[in-house]
Amino acid sequence: MAMEGELCFLPAVELARLLRERELSAVEVVEAHLSQIERTNPEVNAIVTLLPERALEEARAADERLARGEPVGPLHGLPAAHKDLFWTKGVRTTFGSPIFRDFVPDADALIVERLKRAGAISLGKTNTPEFGAGSQTFNEVFGATLNPYDTSRTCGGSSGGAAVALACGMVPLADGSDMGGSLRNPAAFCNVVGLRPSPGRVPSWPSQTSWSPLSVDGPMARTARDVALMLSAIAGPDPRSPLSISESPKRFAAPLERDFSGVRVAWSVDLGGLPVERRVAEVFRGSLPVLEGLGCEVEEAAPDLSGADEVFKVFRAWHFELAYGELLEGHRERMKDTVVWNIEEGRRLSGPRLGAAERLRTELYHRMLEFMERYEFLVLPTTQVAPFPVETPYVTEIEGERMETYIDWMRSCYYITVTALPAASVPCGFTGEGLPVGLQIVGRPRDDFGVLQLTHAFEEATGCGRHRPPVAP
Amino acid sequence: MAMEGELCFLPAVELARLLRERELSAVEVVEAHLSQIERTNPEVNAIVTLLPERALEEARAADERLARGEPVGPLHGLPAAHKDLFWTKGVRTTFGSPIFRDFVPDADALIVERLKRAGAISLGKTNTPEFGAGSQTFNEVFGATLNPYDTSRTCGGSSGGAAVALACGMVPLADGSDMGGSLRNPAAFCNVVGLRPSPGRVPSWPSQTSWSPLSVDGPMARTARDVALMLSAIAGPDPRSPLSISESPKRFAAPLERDFSGVRVAWSVDLGGLPVERRVAEVFRGSLPVLEGLGCEVEEAAPDLSGADEVFKVFRAWHFELAYGELLEGHRERMKDTVVWNIEEGRRLSGPRLGAAERLRTELYHRMLEFMERYEFLVLPTTQVAPFPVETPYVTEIEGERMETYIDWMRSCYYITVTALPAASVPCGFTGEGLPVGLQIVGRPRDDFGVLQLTHAFEEATGCGRHRPPVAP
Repeated sequence: MAMEGELCFLPAVELARLLRERELSAVEVVEAHLSQIERTNPEVNAIVTLLPERALEEARAADERLARGEPVGPLHGLPAAHKDLFWTKGVRTTFGSPIFRDFVPDADALIVERLKRAGAISLGKTNTPEFGAGSQTFNEVFGATLNPYDTSRTCGGSSGGAAVALACGMVPLADGSDMGGSLRNPAAFCNVVGLRPSPGRVPSWPSQTSWSPLSVDGPMARTARDVALMLSAIAGPDPRSPLSISESPKRFAAPLERDFSGVRVAWSVDLGGLPVERRVAEVFRGSLPVLEGLGCEVEEAAPDLSGADEVFKVFRAWHFELAYGELLEGHRERMKDTVVWNIEEGRRLSGPRLGAAERLRTELYHRMLEFMERYEFLVLPTTQVAPFPVETPYVTEIEGERMETYIDWMRSCYYITVTALPAASVPCGFTGEGLPVGLQIVGRPRDDFGVLQLTHAFEEATGCGRHRPPVAP
Repeated sequence: MAMEGELCFLPAVELARLLRERELSAVEVVEAHLSQIERTNPEVNAIVTLLPERALEEARAADERLARGEPVGPLHGLPAAHKDLFWTKGVRTTFGSPIFRDFVPDADALIVERLKRAGAISLGKTNTPEFGAGSQTFNEVFGATLNPYDTSRTCGGSSGGAAVALACGMVPLADGSDMGGSLRNPAAFCNVVGLRPSPGRVPSWPSQTSWSPLSVDGPMARTARDVALMLSAIAGPDPRSPLSISESPKRFAAPLERDFSGVRVAWSVDLGGLPVERRVAEVFRGSLPVLEGLGCEVEEAAPDLSGADEVFKVFRAWHFELAYGELLEGHRERMKDTVVWNIEEGRRLSGPRLGAAERLRTELYHRMLEFMERYEFLVLPTTQVAPFPVETPYVTEIEGERMETYIDWMRSCYYITVTALPAASVPCGFTGEGLPVGLQIVGRPRDDFGVLQLTHAFEEATGCGRHRPPVAP
């Protein structure tokens, strides 16, 4: 049991090596993770649909393929779990909504298809808020997912189940998506690594908005190396996603080691004025000597992101209306208030307001480009708050400043969304109460690799991510 | 004079070779083209701002660079002209609007910058309709540009000046942009080759809509090889354009020769129901044996593009409102009716209508992908009509069918815009009256190269593009 537990906290890159070299069989690995799920999931509710028989069957088939000397993918035998917003062929996909309680898609989402093709073995689906709305993972179908560092608190979201499953050793790899921070916020709250890739880096299908850079799919894991390994399997162009970046995903299989001497980093506690909880700011301040220790030339500086709020809120509301507006007629009573509000905001939008937001987004992108000519990275706290009580659906006040909507507290993430730059969250340390705090690393356009390099260097220097949660010691 | 005239009809690839090998100097080449402009431009009004001194100065500098053995770009010494919608540093840029009669930008558009960096020598600016609106090139600032095959008729548009300048041997290369057909329609009307590249192939800056795939910048020339040469200089990623395709532009410097045996081509006179002038359809039918002669497996087939009209009209109106809406207050009387109408259409749009159009665009893209799995190319007439009298601002009726708006007659082009696929127009032949007809070749997502290969094979097989206009015999 103890050995099984240790196996479940091995890095994915190490597990992959042991599997490839047949020091471990896929069946052993899957069995160990299924036991870990059995032990820990009841306390945190991260995995909401479990596929033990199918996973073991696939593991056996994977072992046989390798035994026969057939080629295997880079994720051969690695357990993974899929966010319940992603279509999984033949497996219930609820989007966290009671309306889709029994929905079984007849195809895999592109990210799921790629994980499978690379040899990953799906153990099941991870919890998400209703339609992914809000960075707090609870819904009417499966209830809330709890923070493994303090089960009275939220794990964040919307890829909340993914982050918790990783933190607890239930899987070494998990997928997610990020519109307003959903790959970064839960990574920060659960002490794991989440990457919001550049739009188009991980092509998305199915999608109703093939040309929108707002929501992206991406990887989550316990280390930057594991995130990079996963990205090497899920990145790369696909004609189904016209925004796809054509660069080869092999780029991400290269070593992440890099000398950061003299690399210019902008460092900002509050992006020039966002309220940030004192305890979060305090932990974040610890990153300054770490970055300097890596050789970075760190400067306190923040880009001018004025307009980001309007851009994000307009396009988010537009997205909710276009994606879920039709559901409102027949199912309003089965939709949570915040989703209904967001759809109704979308209905109130005019073409010219959307047009002005598009212009603003373009302006802001160019303003950010100029800023990023001076700095190779921007570093800030992933979230403005620490994990909060799970009964609180969303944060209404930060350090005395009232939040007007259910998403306002997510600005440190969604302002970055609007810039379309790649951004990761990496463990930064813990508050006095032992709550994880995340460091957000933002890179230049499409420099997902650079972001992973700095993420790796930072985690090597601090080791914060190695501190396991009380639920899975 | 005659020799100079011949020089002006050499293919750009041949001129480039002669320049590189110093068989011709840049000064000679520029002087020849300036003479050609002097001879032919007064009859057609293609080039509306001419830069003879500056061009000669640059030509001298280019000759000196080569003489000193310095490296020169792939377009070394080749004359080019820029559409008057593109910013040119220090050179008047009117957008065809009296409001901007005296506007002098302080920067070059990205496409202009790249042409210069590749060694092209700018001879001036080419005419365009006001703000590029409508496929008929006339405006209050410079008047109309005339078709060199019949100067009582329009050259099409909106890159109309570009097409005419090419047809008359005033330049071997010209840039343009294409929202609803503006690189294809004038190429068809003037018997040259225009390529609407895949969105992101030629990064666009400045732009107010950095994430929109609707309007693209691109190349125009007299042959596919020349278009490919130009594309090899203007394609490739730039961070200023977040939609950029990262693939190297060197791809387009490769030979275009290819064996088309067994290549499946969908061939459609009317895209399944568009009205097409009988004389145009007749010339177009001549392409069937040509394609079969190349070895293609041609099938009469058209994709289901229902919804394309709504998508295009909604996003076009949205674009006009966001780009020019603010001008309406102070300058309404200096804007043409069709532009005012398009802005006002944009003002009437609601967020949900735009949302539905975005969903429709995504659906349509996927429908088109399926169609293009069966066929590698779709071939159709570039335009539904032949060049019409220049006094007619837009076509109001085709074969008895009334057009409701000023853009309806452009559907054979803008339905293809909506699919986001690359498409070229190549000379297909002449009507009984000697009016050019264009063949539109649509390729798979991002297969701009394949489109150029078939364009090249088609022009080699027919030689239609070699027939010079009466204005410049």
